[in-house]
Amino acid sequence: MTGNSFGQAFRITTAGESHGPGNVVIIDGVPPGLELSVEDLMVDLDRRRPGQSKIVTQRNEADLPEILAGVFEGHTTGTSLAILIRNTDQRSRDYSDIQDKYRPGHADYTYDAKYGFRDYRGGGRSSARETTARVAAGVVAKKLIAAAFGGQVVGYVSQVGDIRAEIPDPAAVTLDAVEKLPDGEPNIVRCPDIAAATRMIELIESIRKDGDSIGGAGEIVASGVPAGLGEPVFDKIKADLAKALFSLPAVLGVEYGIGFGCVGMRGSENNDLFTAGPAGHEAEITTSSNRHGGMLGGITSGLPIVLRAAVKPTSSLPIAQETVTRDGQPTTIQTKGRHDPCLLPRFIPMAEAMVAIVLADHWLRHAGQNSLDL
Amino acid sequence: MTGNSFGQAFRITTAGESHGPGNVVIIDGVPPGLELSVEDLMVDLDRRRPGQSKIVTQRNEADLPEILAGVFEGHTTGTSLAILIRNTDQRSRDYSDIQDKYRPGHADYTYDAKYGFRDYRGGGRSSARETTARVAAGVVAKKLIAAAFGGQVVGYVSQVGDIRAEIPDPAAVTLDAVEKLPDGEPNIVRCPDIAAATRMIELIESIRKDGDSIGGAGEIVASGVPAGLGEPVFDKIKADLAKALFSLPAVLGVEYGIGFGCVGMRGSENNDLFTAGPAGHEAEITTSSNRHGGMLGGITSGLPIVLRAAVKPTSSLPIAQETVTRDGQPTTIQTKGRHDPCLLPRFIPMAEAMVAIVLADHWLRHAGQNSLDL
Amino acid sequence: MTGNSFGQAFRITTAGESHGPGNVVIIDGVPPGLELSVEDLMVDLDRRRPGQSKIVTQRNEADLPEILAGVFEGHTTGTSLAILIRNTDQRSRDYSDIQDKYRPGHADYTYDAKYGFRDYRGGGRSSARETTARVAAGVVAKKLIAAAFGGQVVGYVSQVGDIRAEIPDPAAVTLDAVEKLPDGEPNIVRCPDIAAATRMIELIESIRKDGDSIGGAGEIVASGVPAGLGEPVFDKIKADLAKALFSLPAVLGVEYGIGFGCVGMRGSENNDLFTAGPAGHEAEITTSSNRHGGMLGGITSGLPIVLRAAVKPTSSLPIAQETVTRDGQPTTIQTKGRHDPCLLPRFIPMAEAMVAIVLADHWLRHAGQNSLDL
Amino acid sequence: MTGNSFGQAFRITTAGESHGPGNVVIIDGVPPGLELSVEDLMVDLDRRRPGQSKIVTQRNEADLPEILAGVFEGHTTGTSLAILIRNTDQRSRDYSDIQDKYRPGHADYTYDAKYGFRDYRGGGRSSARETTARVAAGVVAKKLIAAAFGGQVVGYVSQVGDIRAEIPDPAAVTLDAVEKLPDGEPNIVRCPDIAAATRMIELIESIRKDGDSIGGAGEIVASGVPAGLGEPVFDKIKADLAKALFSLPAVLGVEYGIGFGCVGMRGSENNDLFTAGPAGHEAEITTSSNRHGGMLGGITSGLPIVLRAAVKPTSSLPIAQETVTRDGQPTTIQTKGRHDPCLLPRFIPMAEAMVAIVLADHWLRHAGQNSLDL
Repeated sequence: MTGNSFGQAFRITTAGESHGPGNVVIIDGVPPGLELSVEDLMVDLDRRRPGQSKIVTQRNEADLPEILAGVFEGHTTGTSLAILIRNTDQRSRDYSDIQDKYRPGHADYTYDAKYGFRDYRGGGRSSARETTARVAAGVVAKKLIAAAFGGQVVGYVSQVGDIRAEIPDPAAVTLDAVEKLPDGEPNIVRCPDIAAATRMIELIESIRKDGDSIGGAGEIVASGVPAGLGEPVFDKIKADLAKALFSLPAVLGVEYGIGFGCVGMRGSENNDLFTAGPAGHEAEITTSSNRHGGMLGGITSGLPIVLRAAVKPTSSLPIAQETVTRDGQPTTIQTKGRHDPCLLPRFIPMAEAMVAIVLADHWLRHAGQNSLDL
Repeated sequence: MTGNSFGQAFRITTAGESHGPGNVVIIDGVPPGLELSVEDLMVDLDRRRPGQSKIVTQRNEADLPEILAGVFEGHTTGTSLAILIRNTDQRSRDYSDIQDKYRPGHADYTYDAKYGFRDYRGGGRSSARETTARVAAGVVAKKLIAAAFGGQVVGYVSQVGDIRAEIPDPAAVTLDAVEKLPDGEPNIVRCPDIAAATRMIELIESIRKDGDSIGGAGEIVASGVPAGLGEPVFDKIKADLAKALFSLPAVLGVEYGIGFGCVGMRGSENNDLFTAGPAGHEAEITTSSNRHGGMLGGITSGLPIVLRAAVKPTSSLPIAQETVTRDGQPTTIQTKGRHDPCLLPRFIPMAEAMVAIVLADHWLRHAGQNSLDL
Repeated sequence: MTGNSFGQAFRITTAGESHGPGNVVIIDGVPPGLELSVEDLMVDLDRRRPGQSKIVTQRNEADLPEILAGVFEGHTTGTSLAILIRNTDQRSRDYSDIQDKYRPGHADYTYDAKYGFRDYRGGGRSSARETTARVAAGVVAKKLIAAAFGGQVVGYVSQVGDIRAEIPDPAAVTLDAVEKLPDGEPNIVRCPDIAAATRMIELIESIRKDGDSIGGAGEIVASGVPAGLGEPVFDKIKADLAKALFSLPAVLGVEYGIGFGCVGMRGSENNDLFTAGPAGHEAEITTSSNRHGGMLGGITSGLPIVLRAAVKPTSSLPIAQETVTRDGQPTTIQTKGRHDPCLLPRFIPMAEAMVAIVLADHWLRHAGQNSLDL
Repeated sequence: MTGNSFGQAFRITTAGESHGPGNVVIIDGVPPGLELSVEDLMVDLDRRRPGQSKIVTQRNEADLPEILAGVFEGHTTGTSLAILIRNTDQRSRDYSDIQDKYRPGHADYTYDAKYGFRDYRGGGRSSARETTARVAAGVVAKKLIAAAFGGQVVGYVSQVGDIRAEIPDPAAVTLDAVEKLPDGEPNIVRCPDIAAATRMIELIESIRKDGDSIGGAGEIVASGVPAGLGEPVFDKIKADLAKALFSLPAVLGVEYGIGFGCVGMRGSENNDLFTAGPAGHEAEITTSSNRHGGMLGGITSGLPIVLRAAVKPTSSLPIAQETVTRDGQPTTIQTKGRHDPCLLPRFIPMAEAMVAIVLADHWLRHAGQNSLDL
């Protein structure tokens, strides 16, 4: 019950299905006075949008947001903010094919087990279409953290299949480098290592031709984050960030800093040593390396936060897969066109949104408790 | 603010520091009528206890719990339950050495950045000593899930440094195999692959002699969990389990099922195909493989839940490490004895507790919403 | 921050202003399988609607709800449910008159003090227009409690000015008696004591002619509620019901059972004595009187829950009132037409909705924790 | 489930029964740096303590608090704070008399109905003994609001039976006037109208001799509260204050400002008119009257907050009352000595604590959201 809210001081609550009237988000806790327009929201909704390039699903949704509440004369009011993104590509279809079959890798069976029945039109509430609401909320969060501490969140695709990007300095990657090629054309795979990006696109196109899909990994970097955000014990910021990313569809693993690489290390190798700031600013303490991924004891250290997520290959496939019906009869199922051969390019804005929301939430939580001047 | 609670329907709230009077947990939402005694609590507190073997810290804490509230005549009452575990090994010490120095890999600096000062006696609230409260609560959660659906949670060490255990079937590992060697002696490293366990112990002893520490990984398996637990969108059970594990000290990565292994896979390889149940029970649907780790769309599928966590090497080291003081002066720091050369053996009961708490919470959440007979 | 949600297991979250695009509610925790249609929602929205009779505001809003999510083929799905009620009577107006003036009794000044500015178009978020969202959610709650335990909530106007209704048995008042006169015509003041109702209507009409407004009281009765709902200590059901009613605009007092009448009583007079059930059913314990208003120790006793709320006279007045501008200059303000001379007739469905939401929430909370069969 | 927490940013969670080991509170969200000692806690615990005067129960509990966590070197650390108050007057008793009988006016029956059984030793979790934990937390809240905005909360008894105190200016009542008579002796009834206080004491003593009890009312005033605290819609500060007071045992009614007196008023009489501040400070807007009790639209107006609560006569009586056993057999019950003939004198510190906790919570919530300088 009540699992449709996220965050404590900056809290989003969502509703919506893939084939219902639309998706809506209510954002509670937004500070008054932030500028916000439909155009602002479109930037990331367009990055998430189906049909944006040849390597993503060719479904076509305009994803035009409507601000229902919480903005007056172009500024947030401090009261709850609501955004609606209507579904437009609800072409009348015959769902009888999937109504009684369980698509492998999807939530069809588990929703039936949970609720006794399900909205079988294209995934219903379990569809990644719900992430439109998150991405819209993420735009507000990004504005908040920019205004509060100059923070920014940039994500990129770091691996597709066995093609790994070489990113010498994650914190130096810019949004521009993720979104555009050196010649100004769109970087449709959102990998700032251009050589790797080219090979990734080729791989995805070849996978698509096979009627198959491919997994990958994304890296999300938050920079400009001051030391001191996060809470001891359960709401360590690493815990909330991990929950944020794991709450996205298809994420099977999350790590930060050196991540699973720590398993084979000794403490003497792994510890990042503290160093003083430059002469005259010795107390501006930092560490010379960042294996700790910007968080120590669950609290930000002032160094960039570096996260990685593993995203499974799309479960819907144009080729036939064996499965069963609701009553256990063997059958096969085949997705009719328009799927994402690789989820990663569209995953990036979703993951950025969730990371920004966690940072906005923790900044507000920190600011409240630490605003007394004793 | 208010980051010291975890869970929604089964909620734990904790307080306590490493060198204060003790650690306390209040558990809210416990069903009435569960049997609970101090002896029950001791089982897992003893598994977590310092000083339990030669490969863990030689600090010695009896960790005797006192049930302060919520139990009457040996049964839970349904009202809030409180357990206090006093600190006993608070030997009077001179902390001047660490009062002004930042221990690498610890939260000393980040707490100072957050709050302006910190309890410098051995980590204060950031110390893993707070996990006594979690482990005590985990015992109650384990009882709840056993009573509710016959569920059980078993964890074990799957890797130390580069020594990996071979575990053919994670769901078949018993608590006994984790805790005891075939000859009945304690399995002090908590790895059920006996050959690997022997090598792990040797490695840890050698690391300790070097004054160093080593990382590792743990695997947690929940079996007997019915299909249907977990919530759509933000409170997917995978998201809450990940948050639970990431909230533990030293965890840098979490994955479930095939985890990061999905990055290189095709959808046609990765999807677990649904199959009917045995003749006459066709509608008891399952999957023949479990790359999905028991969760689809964030809802349990009825298959075992399989999680893995990466745990960094202990940050405190007996050998000298370079660091700085609060005002940025270079110095060195050296932990005086009694540290864990490898965190994994004591990590297992902590991780089991957190997984059990998430399952108890989600079962209660599910039971409430789905108890109407329409 | 984040004050726009109410409830724990049955949780509503709202957004919307009086003159923005509309009001929206997301309801989380609804059990799957409840029948729900737009027509169902209209029943109570029509009872709340402006323009419904000569003694309420003559503003005219159709208040047509749109179900955005959470309903499939006429039944709730168990996932989050969203309802949008668009504002239609947003005639283009000149707000310059109230933009810089503080209306007495309204939230204009306090919102400015809180946020630094406000949506000055007719109250913005502080307008009672937000209660459309609550009333829509209340319909869902009423369906839940009817399905779960045959519960129903009926409210009525018990006093307007100094005219008090005589209601011999609050639990015997039916919705029909509240809504209709014996001749089938609408009971526009919603008072089931017909003689009092007639005088109340006369008083309200006379007050309206004076350009003034009048206070009153409403009584809300929940019947069919089983013993055992509510939580010890903070979430006593009386506490949650009181918060629910006090969260409505213009409520200055709430009492239950004998209420403030207890101040002058002795314990020997006030205690309701327990009595056995009828022969053969002695264990069906009840009390012969109901001064305790259906709740003991914050838990329902099985007797009807009886609540009363004091509602102040409408603050907006067609006659001129003295006030000041934002910068403290003396001025006068006068509401131009279309106000409610008495809030009570439209308050009743709002109050019923809030009471039903609390009961739905507490039933779900109780059902979850107490579903184990030990 | 989980009804044992209160507050959002300043959150208290409690556990404990009347005859268990003790009562414990965990306070989450306390800002770092507040001074706090056991002596500070004792001030209000002594005001709440049984046995403090001849007109309260003669049970004797020292109520010595132990700070278990969250304070270091005399200052709050910012991490969760825990306080334990042990029960000391648990004389071994024979409870067989009340084990199977339902005490009129108490929660015995409703707890049995809820949980299937109860801790029958003196009320268990439903006993007012749990308020020790609230009072201790209230001390921390009072310190917070004093540090944050110079706020203070003072309560007093305004009525016992039909004896009403005359309090010309509630906001002018000092703690000293409540606690001490002009001659320096304790004001044991906590009524600052000395003539009324004398008659109240006589009445209570006479009631006690009759083996009976008497109801009353308390008034709680918060002064120094800045305009702008509270949230729109559900978490209006009036709603949270009402919940806070209704969550206390025996409270049957709450009102603020003119309260139920508004029922008979016209808008033109009831509205408090805004006035400018003194010359040169015109923008320091206020109202010349305070019928609105310091809150408009659920947000504080800067004027004193004035609340009243109706408290029923103690249910336990030394004279015999008719009741039934668990299986519905008629019987009588008689409380053996040591009850409060009037709850009001000890109610005051409990009510002050709850009001302070709400103010602390809302200040932190407000401060977080409104700390951006845009």
